[in-house]
Amino acid sequence: MQGSSNRPIITLLSDFGSLYPAEMKGAILSRTRDAVLVDISHEISPQEIRAGAFALMVAARAFPEGTVHLAVVDPGVGTDRLGLVVESGGHIFVGPDNGLLIPAAESLGSPKAWMIDPSFAHGAAPTFHGRDVFAPAAAMLASGRKPESFGPRVSPKTIDFGGARVIDSGMKAEVIYVDGFGNLILNASEIPEGEFVLSGRRVRRVRTYAEAGCDEPLITIGSHGFAEIAVNGGSAKELFGLAPGNRIVLERENCSE
Amino acid sequence: MQGSSNRPIITLLSDFGSLYPAEMKGAILSRTRDAVLVDISHEISPQEIRAGAFALMVAARAFPEGTVHLAVVDPGVGTDRLGLVVESGGHIFVGPDNGLLIPAAESLGSPKAWMIDPSFAHGAAPTFHGRDVFAPAAAMLASGRKPESFGPRVSPKTIDFGGARVIDSGMKAEVIYVDGFGNLILNASEIPEGEFVLSGRRVRRVRTYAEAGCDEPLITIGSHGFAEIAVNGGSAKELFGLAPGNRIVLERENCSE
Amino acid sequence: MQGSSNRPIITLLSDFGSLYPAEMKGAILSRTRDAVLVDISHEISPQEIRAGAFALMVAARAFPEGTVHLAVVDPGVGTDRLGLVVESGGHIFVGPDNGLLIPAAESLGSPKAWMIDPSFAHGAAPTFHGRDVFAPAAAMLASGRKPESFGPRVSPKTIDFGGARVIDSGMKAEVIYVDGFGNLILNASEIPEGEFVLSGRRVRRVRTYAEAGCDEPLITIGSHGFAEIAVNGGSAKELFGLAPGNRIVLERENCSE
Repeated sequence: MQGSSNRPIITLLSDFGSLYPAEMKGAILSRTRDAVLVDISHEISPQEIRAGAFALMVAARAFPEGTVHLAVVDPGVGTDRLGLVVESGGHIFVGPDNGLLIPAAESLGSPKAWMIDPSFAHGAAPTFHGRDVFAPAAAMLASGRKPESFGPRVSPKTIDFGGARVIDSGMKAEVIYVDGFGNLILNASEIPEGEFVLSGRRVRRVRTYAEAGCDEPLITIGSHGFAEIAVNGGSAKELFGLAPGNRIVLERENCSE
Repeated sequence: MQGSSNRPIITLLSDFGSLYPAEMKGAILSRTRDAVLVDISHEISPQEIRAGAFALMVAARAFPEGTVHLAVVDPGVGTDRLGLVVESGGHIFVGPDNGLLIPAAESLGSPKAWMIDPSFAHGAAPTFHGRDVFAPAAAMLASGRKPESFGPRVSPKTIDFGGARVIDSGMKAEVIYVDGFGNLILNASEIPEGEFVLSGRRVRRVRTYAEAGCDEPLITIGSHGFAEIAVNGGSAKELFGLAPGNRIVLERENCSE
Repeated sequence: MQGSSNRPIITLLSDFGSLYPAEMKGAILSRTRDAVLVDISHEISPQEIRAGAFALMVAARAFPEGTVHLAVVDPGVGTDRLGLVVESGGHIFVGPDNGLLIPAAESLGSPKAWMIDPSFAHGAAPTFHGRDVFAPAAAMLASGRKPESFGPRVSPKTIDFGGARVIDSGMKAEVIYVDGFGNLILNASEIPEGEFVLSGRRVRRVRTYAEAGCDEPLITIGSHGFAEIAVNGGSAKELFGLAPGNRIVLERENCSE
């Protein structure tokens, strides 16, 4: 018997909300009860692959080597899109070949990807590979099955979060994730010098939320290493009316005005 | 000591949202820490026994034999409604005698039901049998206590999801569950031939979501074996304004028009 | 190796919604995989310390002695507010020194508090002590590290829920928590004699929800020992438009009118 201090960890991420994640867990626990199951989030906006990829990237790095990450945001389920096992930095990722897994894998090392042979999906419900393909694969990987045993090496589809672009008048960026506080996380890992204005409101550059005044918009480098726009004691999502995928221009404040 | 590969599984389902499920888990863990605890959903619409019964039925079958399912959607708590232990197909169910447990139990085998002797509820808070009666019972069952030790055999209250009815002009059905994508799950396990219209919109019959066009309404047999109406890339719940319990008529499209 | 029946329990409570709780769990599991992790709630209203303190108090008492409770509702993160380890009644609490932990600790015994030496936060993200300070501390405490090893004894900041006040014409109280049913939990552990009116609607005093008529407002002592206003089959939050922090007057019904 395996010591509990060596129990494998399986994380789960999806856009399923409730109920369907439990079916994935049942499929895992039907194969192994040794794994520690940890939900990253099942509240990814439906079919928002980029938001899911960001959440997976941020959360995966908090887990130790050897963790298996099962991630399913899968608008192409039932088509001929491949299923993947990806290994990087000692972590293993399982999910659809639509870019979801790649930013996380790239942030941890040099990803190697294998397809899951379509025969593995034999008998799977055409609308729920999370339960019938990826969860069983995750259980097997957590139990020691090798990624290369699932199929041949492939080049996975990739996505990247672009990069925010510093321009003369400020910075162009994209909102890639909105968290539970309504903080807007941008595709920028640095904030240029100066003070900024967004949609006519001054956005204060701070090191931590509490430096801003009450209800004051702020920009800071968040705990995940990305720039985020927040409102101290409020919701930047509501104040600015922005959502994942929206592009913004942070204008440098003109001090001579 | 029990090997972790034999750890019992306890699933939890309720309409509690957050906080109260943790109290049930505390009550279980105060009795045994061996069990693997898995949330099915705590987001069942308040007091919607039928929606809870559907979710339990769908999720229970994903778990292995021996699993204990603790389910509490319990508008009658504190009245003289009975508490039940139900065994079926090697699974054990614990919860109120209001029909919640029965579709799941019937889908797994031939249910046998025992009442939980009211003396077991001695000292229980009149508004929270989930924590004070059913969670302790689930912990005991997971630790090997026999269902018949809780009280005499009884005939449980049942509910069924009726059956959708094929009519000349199409199909009459009921929405029994709305999932996190806004998909409308119907009380139908088959879809009659033809093309359909719902509320004036064509609903395309497909095998998997991606076969439909962007934002196109579709009907398919979902991963749970029931017909569901979805919108590819959108929410059928929002498009059609429907909720659990609503009855609908899917009209067969008249090709001669 | 530790027997699973002795596994330590770590509960988690925050206002984070999804994603960030997984990072805290990753930080814990990177240090120990023996612990049973249980979410109390991550749906506390953002930065509502009082609502978080209530939820922690209610849930903590359902867990056995030895449980470590990790709680983070932390508007002052990144300022010089202290981090705390608190011991009371055999339970251990970890979180910010803003009152969040104290009602729970006081309800279980006589709290002793130690600060977490600021050197422990060296390298922590200034916006996420939950992951970088409190989660590692919780893992260490669950693995046997002593509270007093984190820093010197301190007097923690406290909050209390005031007390509802019985007045001639009824009762003045505060809504301290709103649960998933929309029930309004008040800072009152008793309900004075009589019948009440709130915002022009009669509120019936009952022992359990089902004693009230359909859609009838009611007041009862909830499973947590506090008075709560509910609507049988509905939501008191919606009916009365109330939120945590709101003060109300329950007027005694004048029978002579």
